Amino acid sequence: MDNRICGIHPVYEALVSRRTPIERIHIARESHSGKLKEILELARERDVPVRKEERSVLDRMAEGTVHQGVIAVASAISYADFEALFKPDKPVVVVLDGVEDPHNLGAVIRTAEACRASGILVPERHSAPLSTTVVKASAGASAYVPVVRVKNLVNGIDALKERGLWVVGIDPAGTQDWTDFDYTGPVALVLGGEHRGLRRLVREHCDALVRLPMLGNIASLNISVAAAVVLYEIVRQRRATPSNSKEAPQE
Amino acid sequence: MDNRICGIHPVYEALVSRRTPIERIHIARESHSGKLKEILELARERDVPVRKEERSVLDRMAEGTVHQGVIAVASAISYADFEALFKPDKPVVVVLDGVEDPHNLGAVIRTAEACRASGILVPERHSAPLSTTVVKASAGASAYVPVVRVKNLVNGIDALKERGLWVVGIDPAGTQDWTDFDYTGPVALVLGGEHRGLRRLVREHCDALVRLPMLGNIASLNISVAAAVVLYEIVRQRRATPSNSKEAPQE
Repeated sequence: MDNRICGIHPVYEALVSRRTPIERIHIARESHSGKLKEILELARERDVPVRKEERSVLDRMAEGTVHQGVIAVASAISYADFEALFKPDKPVVVVLDGVEDPHNLGAVIRTAEACRASGILVPERHSAPLSTTVVKASAGASAYVPVVRVKNLVNGIDALKERGLWVVGIDPAGTQDWTDFDYTGPVALVLGGEHRGLRRLVREHCDALVRLPMLGNIASLNISVAAAVVLYEIVRQRRATPSNSKEAPQE
Repeated sequence: MDNRICGIHPVYEALVSRRTPIERIHIARESHSGKLKEILELARERDVPVRKEERSVLDRMAEGTVHQGVIAVASAISYADFEALFKPDKPVVVVLDGVEDPHNLGAVIRTAEACRASGILVPERHSAPLSTTVVKASAGASAYVPVVRVKNLVNGIDALKERGLWVVGIDPAGTQDWTDFDYTGPVALVLGGEHRGLRRLVREHCDALVRLPMLGNIASLNISVAAAVVLYEIVRQRRATPSNSKEAPQE
């Protein structure tokens, strides 16, 4: 696996140089060298998640390379700072609660870029890493859309609320149709993962829950499709509002 | 490849029994046995496309199995008759002009089923076969949505027009926004393939061309995403029209 950086010195150098974006670091439980402490310190500073693992897990990951109890997984692109989500005037943030399929993550990034959404918010756990597969599935859009990672998604949602965003969950149990919410203000859309949908706690932290009608026999849409339908409803509403009509060509 | 049926007798039996849906048949150019003529006859009756190939192509496809100059490719599900598209009162047909990625075809089928669209129309050439990958990507929706195959897509579009459908192409060169067309009547949406978009002749046969705004830097949306955005715009419009409000619960 060419996205694995194995061994104390290579991982330390990768963290210090900041040349390679690091997705996460795996450390053997029983490791206690002084240099490893420095690595942990740097990882904390850089917001890189660290997972303690059995040495056998690291042996499998390293595929024969000497790892000295520490392996970093490189990512194709870097995560952005939380502040990057608030660059536009009326932010649209897409919050993904456990999207693990890189094709889905890439497809959401691609549509978000097309709709000029501000960015994507994901949790550390149960999220597809920012791999080359994500970059490819995004058709290059990942170069333009900030993806922000937070330890705890509920805290992240609360932070969005503090910044004035309305948090709208997309959920089969939604109490209104996707078109009945007014998205003309700053807004965050929250979508659940492929396997479990929105978690209860995340759902409870939404200001509103909207549903996409399922008129046939199947139970749900693909995540990237559901995100796209609501993102383009936002585009439709914002184009229709008088405040936006001012943006028409003025020649 | 377990979807290949090799040899004169097995292919003949598959066509006669109708137990296995057949995607297409490959025949060696220089084959002239009497039984092969019967196979060609049956294939014509059953609307199964036949491709004449060099014998070396068949050798490669057969992977060592004896093929006697004929190989059938089985599909996971059958194509439907053209008439299946007109079962609902106000049909919504999704026409795919060269969608070759089975994940995209499956995703379109999934969304079409969720929107209760009438079915999918595809051409024989440059279309993903109805493989198990399509079935899986459709999340089971392929059991409910008829997929109709025509030799010539332009003729197919003309046949839709004769049945009273408005044919709307989704194209970056569209003259109106996707929300500006009135989809409350019978309608067909035409989308181009992953690589080349709508072909000129197909585009010229559309009654209208609508565009999805691309507000960022990238040039296009994923096919299944573009289809979904317009399919849900149709749902939105049809829910909003007075004729549909009569369908509200009457208890």
